Amino acid sequence: MNINDIKKVVILGAGTMGQQISIPCALGGYDVVIYDISEDALQKALKGIPEIMAAMIANKRLTQSEADALIKRITTTSNPEVAAKDADLINESVPEVPELKVKVFSQFNKLCPERTIFTTNTSSLLPSKFADATGRPEKFLSLHYHDTTVTDVVDIMPHPGTSKEIIEIVRQFAVKTGQIPIMMKKENSGYVFNYMMGAVYTTALSLVSRNVVSVEDVDRAWMGVTHMPYGPFGIMDNIGLDTMYHVTEFWAEKTQEPRQLQNAVYLKKYIEAGTLGRKVKKGFYTYPNPAYEHPDFLKQAK
Amino acid sequence: MNINDIKKVVILGAGTMGQQISIPCALGGYDVVIYDISEDALQKALKGIPEIMAAMIANKRLTQSEADALIKRITTTSNPEVAAKDADLINESVPEVPELKVKVFSQFNKLCPERTIFTTNTSSLLPSKFADATGRPEKFLSLHYHDTTVTDVVDIMPHPGTSKEIIEIVRQFAVKTGQIPIMMKKENSGYVFNYMMGAVYTTALSLVSRNVVSVEDVDRAWMGVTHMPYGPFGIMDNIGLDTMYHVTEFWAEKTQEPRQLQNAVYLKKYIEAGTLGRKVKKGFYTYPNPAYEHPDFLKQAK
Repeated sequence: MNINDIKKVVILGAGTMGQQISIPCALGGYDVVIYDISEDALQKALKGIPEIMAAMIANKRLTQSEADALIKRITTTSNPEVAAKDADLINESVPEVPELKVKVFSQFNKLCPERTIFTTNTSSLLPSKFADATGRPEKFLSLHYHDTTVTDVVDIMPHPGTSKEIIEIVRQFAVKTGQIPIMMKKENSGYVFNYMMGAVYTTALSLVSRNVVSVEDVDRAWMGVTHMPYGPFGIMDNIGLDTMYHVTEFWAEKTQEPRQLQNAVYLKKYIEAGTLGRKVKKGFYTYPNPAYEHPDFLKQAK
Repeated sequence: MNINDIKKVVILGAGTMGQQISIPCALGGYDVVIYDISEDALQKALKGIPEIMAAMIANKRLTQSEADALIKRITTTSNPEVAAKDADLINESVPEVPELKVKVFSQFNKLCPERTIFTTNTSSLLPSKFADATGRPEKFLSLHYHDTTVTDVVDIMPHPGTSKEIIEIVRQFAVKTGQIPIMMKKENSGYVFNYMMGAVYTTALSLVSRNVVSVEDVDRAWMGVTHMPYGPFGIMDNIGLDTMYHVTEFWAEKTQEPRQLQNAVYLKKYIEAGTLGRKVKKGFYTYPNPAYEHPDFLKQAK
């Protein structure tokens, strides 16, 4: 098998990440089928994808003519047999519930051809946890996207049983779809960029939980130096403060590290107040139009 | 005293940071005097400042006419009496040797008017260590710049004895010189952005010392997502791997944290090989023209 054998790409899960991932795959010339158990989710995806493309066009990462051409290569189905038929490469973006992922991988293992490469876009789980469920451990690995409206970086992370040949095919697939593959030699929870950002969240939270500086000034410092459009607290609002609390609580319990313990106490107040971030319109910032998106945010300090 | 009483700004130390800091101060309309004990260092500064301004112009952070006007407001002297006379605000950028800073602050305390505000640009030391040496603890705090060719962010960090009035004057001074002041409520080693980046270096080093991914792929991931012109390893080459080793070794000894211990062992190989970073033309990358400055660096992965 080689890269030229890949023709049909199947995205499992029609959420935000599934929608985002379909775009570079279709732009690379692949036939993309988005599968979801919910027809309603598929309808939302068909509305969401043009919005994502508009954001990419605004960021000069896509042209209108590219958008017009690629959208024709994306179809949707809630029929797993239709999705699985002749699938060459699958990318899984279902919710981060291990039992659900096991179920979906087992289901598609039975329906897909033997040759189909299985990849997962999981953010927080390791592929070795699902290698058996795929029924094809040597043809399974992580292919992990970031926010495709702002970056082309993808992590390619094998588990110990992934074959070298499949890693190379997935690397070439990433390149053909315009991505920058980060080639990991072994598993690491959080991959590469997100692993580093995890440490940024810990230090950012520690600065405010110790009352060293305000939430806004931390983000101002980050945005002012990196020129990114958001800082750690803006990103955490997007991740969800419930998720941030669970992760922080887990490491605080495990390591008893004073900074993590203090951060967990700090985040708990947000959980108790129900201000869980962007999804409920209130977290560290209020939404829509959070302060950090205001053109004068950096100057406000002045 | 108020912001309008500030007219003459004195930079102590004509090194890279002293040169950089002189530019926004002069751009803000202040008379800037750079003092250094070494006439040779002052001569180098007079060559270095136009190079820094050229980089700022290239980055669209300064216009040629601004550059032509501001350079006339910058003078140099190796005579401490001349520097100190009528000084309104001092920023200290001498080497990070505590005894040297104490000596310079004590010397200028005797020479300067009582009203002169003393600030330090130290990266790694806390202002409380030098408050007594300034002879004016209530008029002393950190005013810490980053790389002024790429950012306007400055940390304003008081020690427990700094007066609120002086903090406010220095905040207004930062604003008048085009900076984004990050207002810290108390001391924190590493300030705000650098404190977060310290955690990035630890995680980045851990990824390569555990052989998860290459140096180049860590920087590619960072640069590809943040769109910064360098990643953690490029920055560490600029800081100097001897400095990185000493800091890592210090925390490894103190905390016995496995990641820090492994990072210290990893960095020690670079120290033993004498590859200390950009200053010796070899560290994680070779200089000049390190791989990450190549326009195809991100695409090379493809």
